[in-house]
Amino acid sequence: MTELLSNFIGGRWQAGSGAGTALHDPVLGDALVRVDATGLDLPAAFAFAREQGGAALRALSYRERGALLAAAVKVLQANREAYDAIATANSGTVRTDSAIDIDGGIYTLSTYAKLGESLGDRRFLLDGEPARLGKEPLFQSQHVQVPTRGVALFINAFNFPSWGLWEKAAPALLSGVPVIVKPATATAWLTQRMVQDVVNAGVLPAGALSVVCGSSAGLLDALLPDDVVSFTGSAETAALIRSHPAVAQRSVRVNIEADSLNSALLLDGEAPGSESFDLLVKEVTREMTQKSGQKCTAIRRILVPEALYGPAAEAIAARLARTRVGNPRNETVRMGALVNRAQLASVREGLAVLQAQTDTLHDGAGHALVDADPAVACCVGPTLLGTRTPDSADRVHDTEVFGPVATLLPYRDGAHALALVRRGQGSLVTSLYGSNPAALGPAALELAAGHGRVHVVSPDVGALHTGHGNVMPQSLHGGPGRAGGGEELGGARALNFYHRRAALQASTTVLAALAG
Amino acid sequence: MTELLSNFIGGRWQAGSGAGTALHDPVLGDALVRVDATGLDLPAAFAFAREQGGAALRALSYRERGALLAAAVKVLQANREAYDAIATANSGTVRTDSAIDIDGGIYTLSTYAKLGESLGDRRFLLDGEPARLGKEPLFQSQHVQVPTRGVALFINAFNFPSWGLWEKAAPALLSGVPVIVKPATATAWLTQRMVQDVVNAGVLPAGALSVVCGSSAGLLDALLPDDVVSFTGSAETAALIRSHPAVAQRSVRVNIEADSLNSALLLDGEAPGSESFDLLVKEVTREMTQKSGQKCTAIRRILVPEALYGPAAEAIAARLARTRVGNPRNETVRMGALVNRAQLASVREGLAVLQAQTDTLHDGAGHALVDADPAVACCVGPTLLGTRTPDSADRVHDTEVFGPVATLLPYRDGAHALALVRRGQGSLVTSLYGSNPAALGPAALELAAGHGRVHVVSPDVGALHTGHGNVMPQSLHGGPGRAGGGEELGGARALNFYHRRAALQASTTVLAALAG
Repeated sequence: MTELLSNFIGGRWQAGSGAGTALHDPVLGDALVRVDATGLDLPAAFAFAREQGGAALRALSYRERGALLAAAVKVLQANREAYDAIATANSGTVRTDSAIDIDGGIYTLSTYAKLGESLGDRRFLLDGEPARLGKEPLFQSQHVQVPTRGVALFINAFNFPSWGLWEKAAPALLSGVPVIVKPATATAWLTQRMVQDVVNAGVLPAGALSVVCGSSAGLLDALLPDDVVSFTGSAETAALIRSHPAVAQRSVRVNIEADSLNSALLLDGEAPGSESFDLLVKEVTREMTQKSGQKCTAIRRILVPEALYGPAAEAIAARLARTRVGNPRNETVRMGALVNRAQLASVREGLAVLQAQTDTLHDGAGHALVDADPAVACCVGPTLLGTRTPDSADRVHDTEVFGPVATLLPYRDGAHALALVRRGQGSLVTSLYGSNPAALGPAALELAAGHGRVHVVSPDVGALHTGHGNVMPQSLHGGPGRAGGGEELGGARALNFYHRRAALQASTTVLAALAG
Repeated sequence: MTELLSNFIGGRWQAGSGAGTALHDPVLGDALVRVDATGLDLPAAFAFAREQGGAALRALSYRERGALLAAAVKVLQANREAYDAIATANSGTVRTDSAIDIDGGIYTLSTYAKLGESLGDRRFLLDGEPARLGKEPLFQSQHVQVPTRGVALFINAFNFPSWGLWEKAAPALLSGVPVIVKPATATAWLTQRMVQDVVNAGVLPAGALSVVCGSSAGLLDALLPDDVVSFTGSAETAALIRSHPAVAQRSVRVNIEADSLNSALLLDGEAPGSESFDLLVKEVTREMTQKSGQKCTAIRRILVPEALYGPAAEAIAARLARTRVGNPRNETVRMGALVNRAQLASVREGLAVLQAQTDTLHDGAGHALVDADPAVACCVGPTLLGTRTPDSADRVHDTEVFGPVATLLPYRDGAHALALVRRGQGSLVTSLYGSNPAALGPAALELAAGHGRVHVVSPDVGALHTGHGNVMPQSLHGGPGRAGGGEELGGARALNFYHRRAALQASTTVLAALAG
């Protein structure tokens, strides 16, 4: 029997009372560990976090909380190799893909540690300048942001067990709000281990960080009005969370990051083989294959001028054909596995839906697996689809295949290109490729309302840009509509979700005492 | 048969095809006008607003849109007397109470007109400074705010048919987002007339402002991902809106302003008859009687040190006893009617609930009505309740009686006072009264997380302060938990709801072209 991972709630390690759910190696098929949350007293756990963790964190300044994050960074760095081993075994990712999750999480945490230092010794934030409330300057309104007096519950996705934890926990803890994380069961091991290391190192106050592994049953029921919940995952689960009494009736603040159909758009006027054309091709293949396409931000739709449909198809297919797929332990392998059999089935099912409306320009089924048994390993080759009738191919604009799959779409002119991107009804990110700043800027602005991020790749930044799908803590992560309508990261903007804004209307004598 | 008010949608006046619902005079009982929305093509109306209105507004700069608001202000000012007559007849409010709604709306609109002027000739907002995304300064992230490409649907409350429209429409229109307003049926007349005047004056582009009077059936169904909905009203309806597929599944952004149990708190150390004591007594009686207590921001709970329970009860009751209640057309009347029989019944019912756990310190039933027939008029005298056991009086902290009713509660010490305020589980506003800035500031900060606004009344601003319940456009309006979790107004902060934030990651060459 494999090890049963413990949950950390109420300030102590507590095992679930059930048999547990096994986590597997998606390449070799082995059972690795088990998780279980049966019988935990969740209301008591939430109360402990709220009362002990919240009070302890709020007693600290931003600078002091930043120092806690910096201490957590050191703990995680010291244990980095163990995390890589867990990622290889449980996520089936190659080393560079595991690094995106592990080092991306640590980098984000260290970014917020530095932000804490820059926010200094205060315990609340001034929001703007005081505003007069009449002709007499004695009575004014000063807005402040203060930490919410509840917990932050994170219900996370399987694809980023490290980054998904820290990109949310860093701003929450820095804000003075205790965290309870419920990782996706399939890859809960890495999240649980990281929490365990940080908890055991004693760097955080009691109640500041808790982890529940297994079923999410009862978690939402435990939420009270001062709490917040942040969810990453499917639109279906997002709808259930929004309709839950905690959110619908108790006004618990919710942040959703859901599926979206991100685009890459090559602007008009770039010849095949031009720098911009090549940058698109390179970025598309990287996004399709990185983490086997299991990124919310991955490129799903590729838009090129009609005349470039053939050349783009050929160039992307040629690069995809060179991708070695299989066991991440083999150093020649570039792309590892999907997370489990269920995801493999889902990708195949989604692919069939898209293939009913598209041509297959490069078929992933033709990739032989390296060092992996096709009957066991959840590996699948990258597939490029395409259609010359993008307007009528509805499924391409509403069906996200969460794997190494994208669809090439030709557009007639700039307005058509923007209209096709907007068919996604809200996305996390679109990337633009071109060499003309006078065209790139306006196109980015035109698309801004439908995206959390627009990533512009021009030849001058071809070697510098941070990647279409790579979420930098300096920039907003989220997007409207299908992308869930949430906002994460964006530097100090991330603190907004964990603070409450209030207007203090008072005599300037009273306000002056606050600002000091 | 009374006049059937027309709806303005799709750029033209359209009458409902049903018999309509009558609006009444709550003092005299007369039927005034009818409203009906039967048979309207709402999807077409929303599409028209989105496509015609949205495009026209987005083509203007903030300065130009501000000028439209200024033109609307002139139209409303020119028709002000007609609005006062409608308010007297349909809301049963005395002239000063009608002015809070009418002039408050016009003042808010003019505040946003001025803000547009100050935002200048741009069509989007820069959000913060560019941030480096690596060591090389060439690739950076610039956040922007751009108008959402949808409509703003307002589902409004009966108590502010004018202010409720303009406090939402002003920031929406200034942001470049077309407005569709559905006023509460009971007082829809004033909203409809104001829209009619502005529309007929031709100051706004076609599709920028629409009004639907009558049932709200089908309105939410017409919402698409780029739209936003702002609701003011009950927690029950708020929960239905949050659970509606438009919000739960399509991520339509929602703002809720719901019932709350606002408090007034006299800090310790103020003697009966002191300036602070008197300021509390005056503000409490004003808040209880203004608009017959039909304000979301009205004081429902009054907290005083235990030793001051008797003197406060006496002083407040003495002032309430002098309040003349009845027909607002009689110039000696200070307090008019509730809005209709249903609200009268609801207030009586809620009063009975509270009276089961409290003593009646001043009974509104003892007020004889002036120039009004008690069998017809929806008038009720102000009632002060009180209990010496505030911790066990649950209903006082969770039952809002939307009328001239408040409950006096004694507290033992500062911590007890804060705990009692927090029993409201999130409020729009608490007001603090005291003469010691060193005590007022920290108390305001302690309460900030549970409130959209904390209003501090010290003797130096006794004659200047803008009122506990008066919502100033400079300050945030909203509150967490029971208050709905929304944010309105707050100066330029109000524009956030109608904009989408996006990070533009690009070469500084591309970003420089945007900032220009």
